[in-house]
Amino acid sequence: MQIPLPQGFEYAALAAGFKQSGAADLGLVLSKTPATAAATFTTNRFQAAPVIVGMERIAAGAPMRGICINSGQANACTGEQGLENCRKSMELLAASLGISHNELLPASTGVIGVHMDMEKWSAAAPKLVEKLTPYGAEAFARAIMTTDAFPKIAWRTVTLPDGNQVNILGIAKGAGMICPNMATMLSVVLCDAQVEQAEWRKILKQAIEKGFNRVTVDGDTSTNDTVYALANGASGITPQGDGLKDLAAGVEEVCLQLAKLLVADGEGGTKVIRITVQGAADNSQAEQVARTVGHSQLVKTAFYGKDANWGRIVAAIGRSNATFSPDAVRVVLNDVLLFDKGAPVPGDKDALLAFSLREREQHLAITLGSGSGEYELFAADLTHEYVSINADYTT
Amino acid sequence: MQIPLPQGFEYAALAAGFKQSGAADLGLVLSKTPATAAATFTTNRFQAAPVIVGMERIAAGAPMRGICINSGQANACTGEQGLENCRKSMELLAASLGISHNELLPASTGVIGVHMDMEKWSAAAPKLVEKLTPYGAEAFARAIMTTDAFPKIAWRTVTLPDGNQVNILGIAKGAGMICPNMATMLSVVLCDAQVEQAEWRKILKQAIEKGFNRVTVDGDTSTNDTVYALANGASGITPQGDGLKDLAAGVEEVCLQLAKLLVADGEGGTKVIRITVQGAADNSQAEQVARTVGHSQLVKTAFYGKDANWGRIVAAIGRSNATFSPDAVRVVLNDVLLFDKGAPVPGDKDALLAFSLREREQHLAITLGSGSGEYELFAADLTHEYVSINADYTT
Repeated sequence: MQIPLPQGFEYAALAAGFKQSGAADLGLVLSKTPATAAATFTTNRFQAAPVIVGMERIAAGAPMRGICINSGQANACTGEQGLENCRKSMELLAASLGISHNELLPASTGVIGVHMDMEKWSAAAPKLVEKLTPYGAEAFARAIMTTDAFPKIAWRTVTLPDGNQVNILGIAKGAGMICPNMATMLSVVLCDAQVEQAEWRKILKQAIEKGFNRVTVDGDTSTNDTVYALANGASGITPQGDGLKDLAAGVEEVCLQLAKLLVADGEGGTKVIRITVQGAADNSQAEQVARTVGHSQLVKTAFYGKDANWGRIVAAIGRSNATFSPDAVRVVLNDVLLFDKGAPVPGDKDALLAFSLREREQHLAITLGSGSGEYELFAADLTHEYVSINADYTT
Repeated sequence: MQIPLPQGFEYAALAAGFKQSGAADLGLVLSKTPATAAATFTTNRFQAAPVIVGMERIAAGAPMRGICINSGQANACTGEQGLENCRKSMELLAASLGISHNELLPASTGVIGVHMDMEKWSAAAPKLVEKLTPYGAEAFARAIMTTDAFPKIAWRTVTLPDGNQVNILGIAKGAGMICPNMATMLSVVLCDAQVEQAEWRKILKQAIEKGFNRVTVDGDTSTNDTVYALANGASGITPQGDGLKDLAAGVEEVCLQLAKLLVADGEGGTKVIRITVQGAADNSQAEQVARTVGHSQLVKTAFYGKDANWGRIVAAIGRSNATFSPDAVRVVLNDVLLFDKGAPVPGDKDALLAFSLREREQHLAITLGSGSGEYELFAADLTHEYVSINADYTT
């Protein structure tokens, strides 16, 4: 890839046979030196084995060497045996790498409720290690795909106040926010800056809130959702003060970019709807309005149908439980004022929006007039293709 | 209709020209004598003019003579002018009927943000009154339809402990829970028992909770949702004690039946999914689980696709915020145990469910093992047709 990669990372990808298609289904990222690690896991009460194991390792707080992700088998709802298999798979890989298995972070995505094929893991581990190369990021991104239409990669070079530069690379998979068989959201964020653990965890937490948490395809979460972040210090640069803020902003941008790619690939989606809410009583109410609108099936189908349906938007705002005066609500779609002071604005809006409603990016701006709370959410539309993908799927 | 109708009510329907199709779009129910009235209105912050006017009249507490519903124009988001038009329309009708306009309850459904055509109202009011007949209930049910595929009528004859009988008739319209242009949920419940106002309001409130509130198509609410209930005493019977309980049970059954008809007609829906949750920490958590599962796009598309997708069901349970141990969860679909003790039950479930998954009625039973909380919800599936209906619609 012709993009500025963080130093000190190698990547490998392999077809281990987990996917029936024969496509690559095993990916490994290895840092040459122990890296500061942070992670965020699914909030779903059902946690897959790799989520439980990953949580333990992150909680232990030691530096990490790598992340291994397999696609095709999720190792979720697999009980004690699933946990054993997960640990065993990391041991197999660690043995080939000559490191401790505790230095590897696991993640899985694929069919749930089925035990992993450990024979395939045994055969694949040494072969995967042989494939490690500094140029394998794209192959890694492809190996972790399931229903994804395209690999998802984002990057930033952050120039610190002292002129030094560090690089951030983000890779993600996911299309629907969930599809327990096949479409979990997984992501790795890699950086060559030297960062203290507490600081790195804070940076990731904030980037998740401002990035991944601001997108929605169908409002569902998975048993396997995981974001891992490694900062290995290979650049020799230790950002401090304002430099840390710049780094945090860079990680946030990478996460938001990945999140937008997830929505853009939203199963069958044709549009990315940016919903901005302003003037709410507080930020939390602004978020509530944005999510109610962004999750409304009727709003989502209207966007699919290129219909400037302010009525559905207003009705969704009205049932969001936010406090506001209906007379103060304004709705602007792609810069065209649709609704103001409790009533639709007269005139032929279809003509004004005829072109912009065909665009992939839509901007829905809602003003409530109740305070200074605001929120931004990126949502997918709801399409025939979404229904086809998710109805035709069989376990 | 060959069904036992409550005594003392007459019905009228007319094509007033509100609907472009030329179909009937104005319906009137008149009680020969003043009736005890109760109502429930939308919880949406945007309330249509007829909702505001209806609320005022119900709050005043006087007996009512009739309910007038027009379809084709919702009179929502129409400001002061909309309120004036609503009151004027009731005055026109009251003048023809020779009663006070305050004795009429209004409801509207149709295109929102547009002012009602008062000339058409003026022309229609006297003609509508001429059409009043005791046999017009079905015509009334048709006149209030919008995207409905069929009129929705339910009834019960309640035999009281003393052997006397009273009749209940329920009529509803609605397909999606909302579609602000066209698909509000409206209902009238008519009864010929003599009931005190406080008692009648209690009975309706309870019937709404156990009836209409237990169904979901897309989770949306409308600016116009209204349920009106009249008890006119024309049977000469005044239920008391256990008789009141029997009456309440009858009203509840009528509302639940109407609610199921709404889901059965759910825009493009092919299935009615009965979701029962048991063993939750409390009833409210049970409801939370049922609604999270019933609103999950992935679960709904799986039912459409005849896919026994326990993974999506379990993942929805897992993100419901209810407290439970994943190991205690059981999922039974159409009497087949799919998931038990945190893992899928082995065996070919597709074969066992091959027939039942093609049925219109589905039963998804979820047990959490955390207490004695329970809830029952009726949900629609999510289909290609739903997307077509709602995407192809234009304002």
